[in-house]
Amino acid sequence: MKIDGKPTRTIWVEGDAVGIIDQTALPHRFVTARLATLEEAARAIKSMQVRGAPLIGAAAAYGIWLALKADASDEGIERAYAVLLATRPTAINLKWALDEMLATVRNRPRAERAAAALARANEIAEEDVAINQAIGRHGLKLIEDIAARKKGERVNVLTHCNAGWLATVDWGTATAPIYMAHDKGLPIHVFADETRPRNQGASLTAWELGKHGVAHTVISDNTGGHLMQHGMVDLVIVGTDRVTAQGDVCNKIGTYLKALAAHDNDVPFYVALPSPTIDFTVSDGVAEIPIEQRGAEEVATMTGKTADGRIETVQVVPDGSPVANYGFDVTPARLVTGLITERGVLKAGRAALAAAFPERA
Amino acid sequence: MKIDGKPTRTIWVEGDAVGIIDQTALPHRFVTARLATLEEAARAIKSMQVRGAPLIGAAAAYGIWLALKADASDEGIERAYAVLLATRPTAINLKWALDEMLATVRNRPRAERAAAALARANEIAEEDVAINQAIGRHGLKLIEDIAARKKGERVNVLTHCNAGWLATVDWGTATAPIYMAHDKGLPIHVFADETRPRNQGASLTAWELGKHGVAHTVISDNTGGHLMQHGMVDLVIVGTDRVTAQGDVCNKIGTYLKALAAHDNDVPFYVALPSPTIDFTVSDGVAEIPIEQRGAEEVATMTGKTADGRIETVQVVPDGSPVANYGFDVTPARLVTGLITERGVLKAGRAALAAAFPERA
Repeated sequence: MKIDGKPTRTIWVEGDAVGIIDQTALPHRFVTARLATLEEAARAIKSMQVRGAPLIGAAAAYGIWLALKADASDEGIERAYAVLLATRPTAINLKWALDEMLATVRNRPRAERAAAALARANEIAEEDVAINQAIGRHGLKLIEDIAARKKGERVNVLTHCNAGWLATVDWGTATAPIYMAHDKGLPIHVFADETRPRNQGASLTAWELGKHGVAHTVISDNTGGHLMQHGMVDLVIVGTDRVTAQGDVCNKIGTYLKALAAHDNDVPFYVALPSPTIDFTVSDGVAEIPIEQRGAEEVATMTGKTADGRIETVQVVPDGSPVANYGFDVTPARLVTGLITERGVLKAGRAALAAAFPERA
Repeated sequence: MKIDGKPTRTIWVEGDAVGIIDQTALPHRFVTARLATLEEAARAIKSMQVRGAPLIGAAAAYGIWLALKADASDEGIERAYAVLLATRPTAINLKWALDEMLATVRNRPRAERAAAALARANEIAEEDVAINQAIGRHGLKLIEDIAARKKGERVNVLTHCNAGWLATVDWGTATAPIYMAHDKGLPIHVFADETRPRNQGASLTAWELGKHGVAHTVISDNTGGHLMQHGMVDLVIVGTDRVTAQGDVCNKIGTYLKALAAHDNDVPFYVALPSPTIDFTVSDGVAEIPIEQRGAEEVATMTGKTADGRIETVQVVPDGSPVANYGFDVTPARLVTGLITERGVLKAGRAALAAAFPERA
């Protein structure tokens, strides 16, 4: 999407290296980085300079290319695979992308491996863009319907966390319909939940919407229910980390609370996802998905910019107060109006998911 | 309640002056202040060194005493009333306490006025303590019932914002049952919502629970739903700023989301309040109560302690991103299990409220 008018992606090839946006500097500084080696690519993933499942996959794919340019031996491939896989061991997209790269290069002559790796990495990046564009087109119809009903009044979308273009190669998942609506000239406005404890909504979603020129307002995570009670939200669109076979949605902690408020106020609640996010091996999300507990410092501190422009981390809980930090929650399918996938908007239920993805169900 | 073993109130008389806890320094520093004049009392209220409706009322009452010690003339009374009323013009308790003080002193000889003011201010403080103790006794039964059912397992209470002893003279409202249960030796544990944007849960509730020795855990505001889905919350107790004649509850923004989660998971949701909080002139809280919008900087920034011990404020939203900051929301009575008042636990509905408070309904 655009940054101050200039079309930009989160990852790109520049000459013999890979360019990325260093997302750890956002939202206070826009910094790009150049990755020229396997080690630099691995460090970028591990340190979360690149984050978001689809972007991690693409970055790992390019990491294989960077590795093979230096060492295209079988041992070189194996080493690159292992080094990259270890950066974020729980990221499913990472392993998928690495397996794709391995299949692409291993049966080729050494001299062709690097070029083949670059071609496949480019494909993986383009596939992500294409999927998100398809999600965007399907979601756009939902926004257009509301816009038609509201006859020129602004359409208010609430979102949680960052399922934006920064988490993907371009477009994002939850944001793809929003960017398409904006680019088409529809009067769209986004309420961006701050998303404590890591503040991805305030620091990433608000930043990317603002840079592309989409009207938005940052709110504390406590606010969405009040807005919905007062008719100030027309629809909710969030992303997801995992959707179960029966349509339960695992996403950033707090998503479930927004789904409850949407349900209580008859506000449509949509989840945008690329279909690999569907895990047909899991059924009851609340009962079956283990929820990661993360470090206490994420809740106990906040990082931001001081009045004189320094980046500083401050402690916001009392010394000695214990902290719990659950990363995700599960929104039961009964609260989900629909799943926006690259194959269309589906009912969040076993039959609809199986019908749309018969090859996997 | 206790601070590191020492019984403490939020406000007290020391010789010719009034002592307070300077709450603006919490949770990182414990600082008390001595108020010797009308002006010092007014500044303490205005700058939120004292906050919370009941505590503001008591502080204003003592402020009249401090004023009359210096000038007990009719003009002195009028001036003190006006200066104190202007500190927090929307605080209903403030005006109530000032009217009480005015009625106490104005028909007395000048020479008796200061002494009478001190006596009435002490009474106002003691009345607050007595009301909170009554709330505590009624709420304690709810906790005891759960403790009996859980046979020694810890009882988990979730609370939002600070309706603790720091907001009152002592005991607090939502916290009174918790302190009584703790002091009785029941195995109680509190999940304290951070309560963005002003973080009263993390900075005040966690602090006071910790200092009294009550087991607690700070969580982000997004977390309560997940905990309730997994049986980790036995009951919710929150305070309130205003309860309507039909039992709708206006409280800190985000309370409604927790009430929805409690309802969805069959977790009892209680609201603790002194009966003056009931506003019999309002019926439908969502439709009738205007919700204050507060300054953007509360959402845009966070204040805390740096690693080297300085208090610093950092910006946590991108430059130029608009922010909305609604202070309160309304929880419909249908989501409220009961109202814990000084006259007992009441159903959140018109009939029960009118029956319990026939003199006001």
